[in-house]
Amino acid sequence: MTLELPGTVPFTYPNSQAAFARARRVIPSGIYGHQGPTEGVYVPQSAFPLFSSRAEGSHFWDVDDNEYIDYMCGYGPNVLGYGDPDVEAAASKQRLLEDVVTIPSTIMVDFAELLVDTVASADWAFFAKNGGDTTTLAVMTARAATRRKKIVFVNGFYHGVAPWSQKLDYPGVIEEDVAHNLYVDFNDLPGLRQLFSDHRGEIAGLIAQPYMHGNFVDNELPAAGYWQEVRRLCDEYGVVLIIDDVRAGFRLDLAGSDHYFGFKADLICFCKALANGYNVSALCGRESLKDTVSSLSYTGSYWMSAVPFAAGIATITKLKELDGPAQFARLGTELTTGLVTTAADNGFTLVASGAPALFYLRIADDDSLMLHQEWVAECVQRGVFITSHHNHFINAALTSADISRTLEVAHEAFGIVRANHPDLAPSV
Amino acid sequence: MTLELPGTVPFTYPNSQAAFARARRVIPSGIYGHQGPTEGVYVPQSAFPLFSSRAEGSHFWDVDDNEYIDYMCGYGPNVLGYGDPDVEAAASKQRLLEDVVTIPSTIMVDFAELLVDTVASADWAFFAKNGGDTTTLAVMTARAATRRKKIVFVNGFYHGVAPWSQKLDYPGVIEEDVAHNLYVDFNDLPGLRQLFSDHRGEIAGLIAQPYMHGNFVDNELPAAGYWQEVRRLCDEYGVVLIIDDVRAGFRLDLAGSDHYFGFKADLICFCKALANGYNVSALCGRESLKDTVSSLSYTGSYWMSAVPFAAGIATITKLKELDGPAQFARLGTELTTGLVTTAADNGFTLVASGAPALFYLRIADDDSLMLHQEWVAECVQRGVFITSHHNHFINAALTSADISRTLEVAHEAFGIVRANHPDLAPSV
Repeated sequence: MTLELPGTVPFTYPNSQAAFARARRVIPSGIYGHQGPTEGVYVPQSAFPLFSSRAEGSHFWDVDDNEYIDYMCGYGPNVLGYGDPDVEAAASKQRLLEDVVTIPSTIMVDFAELLVDTVASADWAFFAKNGGDTTTLAVMTARAATRRKKIVFVNGFYHGVAPWSQKLDYPGVIEEDVAHNLYVDFNDLPGLRQLFSDHRGEIAGLIAQPYMHGNFVDNELPAAGYWQEVRRLCDEYGVVLIIDDVRAGFRLDLAGSDHYFGFKADLICFCKALANGYNVSALCGRESLKDTVSSLSYTGSYWMSAVPFAAGIATITKLKELDGPAQFARLGTELTTGLVTTAADNGFTLVASGAPALFYLRIADDDSLMLHQEWVAECVQRGVFITSHHNHFINAALTSADISRTLEVAHEAFGIVRANHPDLAPSV
Repeated sequence: MTLELPGTVPFTYPNSQAAFARARRVIPSGIYGHQGPTEGVYVPQSAFPLFSSRAEGSHFWDVDDNEYIDYMCGYGPNVLGYGDPDVEAAASKQRLLEDVVTIPSTIMVDFAELLVDTVASADWAFFAKNGGDTTTLAVMTARAATRRKKIVFVNGFYHGVAPWSQKLDYPGVIEEDVAHNLYVDFNDLPGLRQLFSDHRGEIAGLIAQPYMHGNFVDNELPAAGYWQEVRRLCDEYGVVLIIDDVRAGFRLDLAGSDHYFGFKADLICFCKALANGYNVSALCGRESLKDTVSSLSYTGSYWMSAVPFAAGIATITKLKELDGPAQFARLGTELTTGLVTTAADNGFTLVASGAPALFYLRIADDDSLMLHQEWVAECVQRGVFITSHHNHFINAALTSADISRTLEVAHEAFGIVRANHPDLAPSV
């Protein structure tokens, strides 16, 4: 399919493919989640590496020793750079003392105090392992606090994989799991007012991402005044306002993405960027809900692991020192501005949406999204790891040299796509 | 309360208490789960340390620098000894390469292959973070595979904290979460036959621990032929048989606790002992359910972390080399036999129940269990960390010297309890 132009030799993946054949024998679907090959849905499998061998800073290497500038960051956790020396030093120091022990380390308290100091809406922190552990705890807390059942979701949501957070037509989900879920569109205040009014006294909580960073669609920021009115309506109707900041948390604003958009959540869920990849998540929230959380039966085998707390303290501390969110916004803007220009130079309209720190890309010249997938594949095969229909992530180890190289590769990839479709008229 | 006899000076916990005061300000309930102080329910809070500072082998130290022989093992994860050098070396080696990256390491495949080779009922492995991630996946798989809704639970169960696995009278749980849960007693085959017959064609799965290692009651092993008949009934009624081996897994039998009791589960859940405390869990199962698992929407931010896989490979490999389960049975029997004798020497009847590797203790002279709590507290305050109404765990670093010291402390503690209750007649 690819017309070879003078330029980079595209990568091949024999070792990835061999490893994937092994994986499929002993792991359902071989690789699960986004990283798995879902041919024709997310990415063309044959154009992508499937297994990595090492990672450092903003780069990783696959098992065929191809090197990538990585814009997925482990789907979020890599916020300071793979193997960040300060995080690794803090984790190693704690590791020499203890990790999972019968009674916890006081470093759990240190981390909770740091989050309470850092996150505007946090009077307390409760630690777990998955983002989904915290969204589930948030929903249970809202139900326990209000003695109501219904939860409002924003269409396009993703809050993990617990049955209550899936959809009825998904395998393994039963009607009762989602019986009290209500749905509204993002930025639709009249719709939300109607829903609240129709179900007065029945709605326990509203759960939402701080802005819509969904898949397959341009990401959407809140309209002016949207969150302030949502906050007011939640107060009026006694609805617990839950912000799922698992994906955007600590990339927009260290004080929380609710703070970034000028409002205050009742409960806020963190995971990915919390500890630079060390396995920990946190629900934070207001004093008024603390006793309710205490009343729930909610714990897990590894939830008081000390090493991830040490990594988390080092991560948040360094993000503060660097002013991480400002750096992510600057780098993300530099990159997306450059990509849009590079696309235009090749006659394509590239739409970059969402926050620059978590930019989402779409080539607007083709509604089927196949042109976009084709361009993504050409980039990946030349060492720029982006993905097709999901937001990306900036990390603090990304350099201007990485961005320059990315724009070179993007230019070559756009040229190849243009050459592959000689009949397609330039859109810019 | 305590009458001081010549002997060990009981520990005090000023630093633990000070840290707990800090914790209560920023963490709901200060410490959650069993480790938390639930005055009068599990343990008398004032007699227990609340925070640890370091751990090594079979011992940990609290923040007041009191040293303990630890029989809780982090509530299971410590299976080889805290900081086991082989596990730490394997984890460190992997850590230098990569951990959470955009695409997984092939060490995930290596670990899945090892589990498939090791666990009798495993044709595949699916990795997550919590034991509860695997019980939830198992229940969803059973529902998706059978297109039925009902799940049979065995009274006294614990399968994590997901809403479906809790009870209706627990805060945050709604009727719909547990609407299709059915309950039967352990070892009650007539009751199970009746339940299966009454709900023919409606039951998706039966979830059970391999034996009853519940709290507040003597642990109960399966009656002869029990599991074989359960297996037969599940086959007859088309019910998926799910074994929750989160607590007992790799302590009774490296091939799985179902193998230990002479039957084969359809799905088996592992967590705690899988990687000596590194944060990973696994659902294993039969080939016939693999495609169903693949069809579910089920993933998490850290589920492909490479470091816990390296630790898991080292853990299972070393458990094989040591024949861990044989060692746990021998040490557990030596300890419980000694404790029962020591109790009798002091006129008490101590009942040790369950598998020796996960022994459960109860002083039978007092139905209120308060006498038992009193004895446990005296042991803890002298450096033997046991707990009041939960099973214990043996780890491979436990030595005969540890056991000898434990029996000395137990003897002294029984003597103190005897002296505290001069009117109580000896029962043996």
